[in-house]
Amino acid sequence: MPIPMRPEIANMKPYVPGKPMAEVRRELGLDDVVKLASNENPLGPSPLALQAARSALPGSHLYPEGSSPDLRAALADRWGVAPDWVLVGNGSDEIFRVLSLVYIRPGDHVVIPAPSFSVYTSDTQLTGGVPVTVPVRDGAMDLPAMAGAAVQNQARLVYLCRPNNPTGGVFAAADFPAFMAQVPPETLVVLDEAYHEYDSTGFDCRPYLDQYPNLVVTRTFSKIYGLAGLRIGYGVGRPEVWAPLQTAREPFSVNMIGQVAALAALTDEAHLAASKALNQAGKSFLYGLFRELGLPADPTEANFILVDLQREAGPVQRALLRHGVIVRDTGSFGLPTCIRVTVGTEAENRRFAAALRTVLAG
Amino acid sequence: MPIPMRPEIANMKPYVPGKPMAEVRRELGLDDVVKLASNENPLGPSPLALQAARSALPGSHLYPEGSSPDLRAALADRWGVAPDWVLVGNGSDEIFRVLSLVYIRPGDHVVIPAPSFSVYTSDTQLTGGVPVTVPVRDGAMDLPAMAGAAVQNQARLVYLCRPNNPTGGVFAAADFPAFMAQVPPETLVVLDEAYHEYDSTGFDCRPYLDQYPNLVVTRTFSKIYGLAGLRIGYGVGRPEVWAPLQTAREPFSVNMIGQVAALAALTDEAHLAASKALNQAGKSFLYGLFRELGLPADPTEANFILVDLQREAGPVQRALLRHGVIVRDTGSFGLPTCIRVTVGTEAENRRFAAALRTVLAG
Repeated sequence: MPIPMRPEIANMKPYVPGKPMAEVRRELGLDDVVKLASNENPLGPSPLALQAARSALPGSHLYPEGSSPDLRAALADRWGVAPDWVLVGNGSDEIFRVLSLVYIRPGDHVVIPAPSFSVYTSDTQLTGGVPVTVPVRDGAMDLPAMAGAAVQNQARLVYLCRPNNPTGGVFAAADFPAFMAQVPPETLVVLDEAYHEYDSTGFDCRPYLDQYPNLVVTRTFSKIYGLAGLRIGYGVGRPEVWAPLQTAREPFSVNMIGQVAALAALTDEAHLAASKALNQAGKSFLYGLFRELGLPADPTEANFILVDLQREAGPVQRALLRHGVIVRDTGSFGLPTCIRVTVGTEAENRRFAAALRTVLAG
Repeated sequence: MPIPMRPEIANMKPYVPGKPMAEVRRELGLDDVVKLASNENPLGPSPLALQAARSALPGSHLYPEGSSPDLRAALADRWGVAPDWVLVGNGSDEIFRVLSLVYIRPGDHVVIPAPSFSVYTSDTQLTGGVPVTVPVRDGAMDLPAMAGAAVQNQARLVYLCRPNNPTGGVFAAADFPAFMAQVPPETLVVLDEAYHEYDSTGFDCRPYLDQYPNLVVTRTFSKIYGLAGLRIGYGVGRPEVWAPLQTAREPFSVNMIGQVAALAALTDEAHLAASKALNQAGKSFLYGLFRELGLPADPTEANFILVDLQREAGPVQRALLRHGVIVRDTGSFGLPTCIRVTVGTEAENRRFAAALRTVLAG
């Protein structure tokens, strides 16, 4: 007899991750695999982060400090806020999860862009919330429509993703004040800026954090900082918003090595600059490729490009796999003719280009 | 205007962790601090684990494989089960949390021993469950009373902790068959064996896993394996129990370095043997000390001892802190005259003994 479970869980879809390299190697017997599927930094982690992590390893037998005090203080300093404005999480995933656990009551409405990061929906479903999806417009949040949906549904929470995953677009900074003014003060706005460091538009959410107690922003060390494997994300917002999360979260969710590595990565300006430059060059190369192949590609402010193959993408994605190139089939985002390609190193981009030409010609 | 939150959260108490060494150093300006508060392995991590972690660090920019396939396969092999019988978590904390999220519906009863690990209660409260506490008897689970409470309350879940934290006792193996036979099949029994490797009684839950689809057991790499900072725990039980957890959990909750380190630690028999021997010797020393001081101490099968100071323990714990010795004040467990002392190295135990003598004489 099965153990009865919450009905919410039965309606959820499992997360579909980018295929890990080890799995592709195992399954296809390939040695040389290029992964452009999960928007990781192709330069790898910051050397300063690696050095700090190595030095800290011998202390791995000690429990981490649950609140990540050193990293929190460093982030607070950068943001010009008190430490209790910062919450460090086991990836920003943990922050989304605990925000849902604290603030979503069964039946509450949550406004979510589509297509966008699937975790917004799964966390909402997990906690009995009702997702209200608002289509992305020109690859970015449709702010007027989202504000309207928030008002109309008395939404408890609104997710914004900027730049948006998987489209790469950004909403116009000029539209944000009107959005915040229209959203009710008891609706929490969660602005996910996982790809912010790649964004060339100079948008700064900082002044809005002072003005709006119902706004929080999240960032991550998994993208440009190259620490996805160590699981560090963070949120910035009012201490009143975070306080109940301190109670509701698992007490030791953030591992010690990740805390130490992220703290060091923050100081590695050279790694950050090199990563941005590599991304810029790779974007140009890939847009050139797609133009040449006549494939429409969304303008991106992130480290990935969504490209429309104008045919069923699944078979192309699987054929690329057999060439040892992993890209993201965006079927799970509701985009069956597209793939999302992470901008890689020059060699990786060339390898992808060659494989794509072969596959499309085949 | 505050964002309205779930009423469950307002009733929860934040977790009270053992004080981290860095915090004590900061607060008291002490350099040489001994931490015997969080049941960590005083020998530190396995050298094989450290070596594996060091080698893996350069891959930290890649997302971890969410299901920890290599570690899962190795654990399954040891347990003689298929890999889908094993679930690896961000500490066993994550497994308790996701079990609650999946199986506890608001109003469901959960049978919990007292005093015991506080996370059982907080996860139950978080998910709207109703804790039914059953007092520990002679420092261990009172199995007949717990089975009775499970039946009477049609409990959804029963937590067993063996050896029990903070008392160190173990229930008699001979009582377990009757317990499992009495608990209803739609009640999930979660047997937390975080300290199992220290237990000298030879209890083996393995045969019961085959017999009872409603039993899961959890273990951790945070205790004898010396990897608390890397957050790796796991559960063993039927795939049908774990399947909905795969959907409900955060997709990348388990960091990569922890997965790699735990896999190597599993093979380090020498570190395991040395850790057991050190613990055995330290237990003898500490029991001798407590006998000499006339302080009743519970018999332990773990790496800590609960000792009754027969006076208010808080002031003693704080005085020990000023001597640079951190022990766990068990007030938060409802034991205001006791402290819980982790068995340390010989030097650490002597340092604690000297400090305790001074403080109690003072």
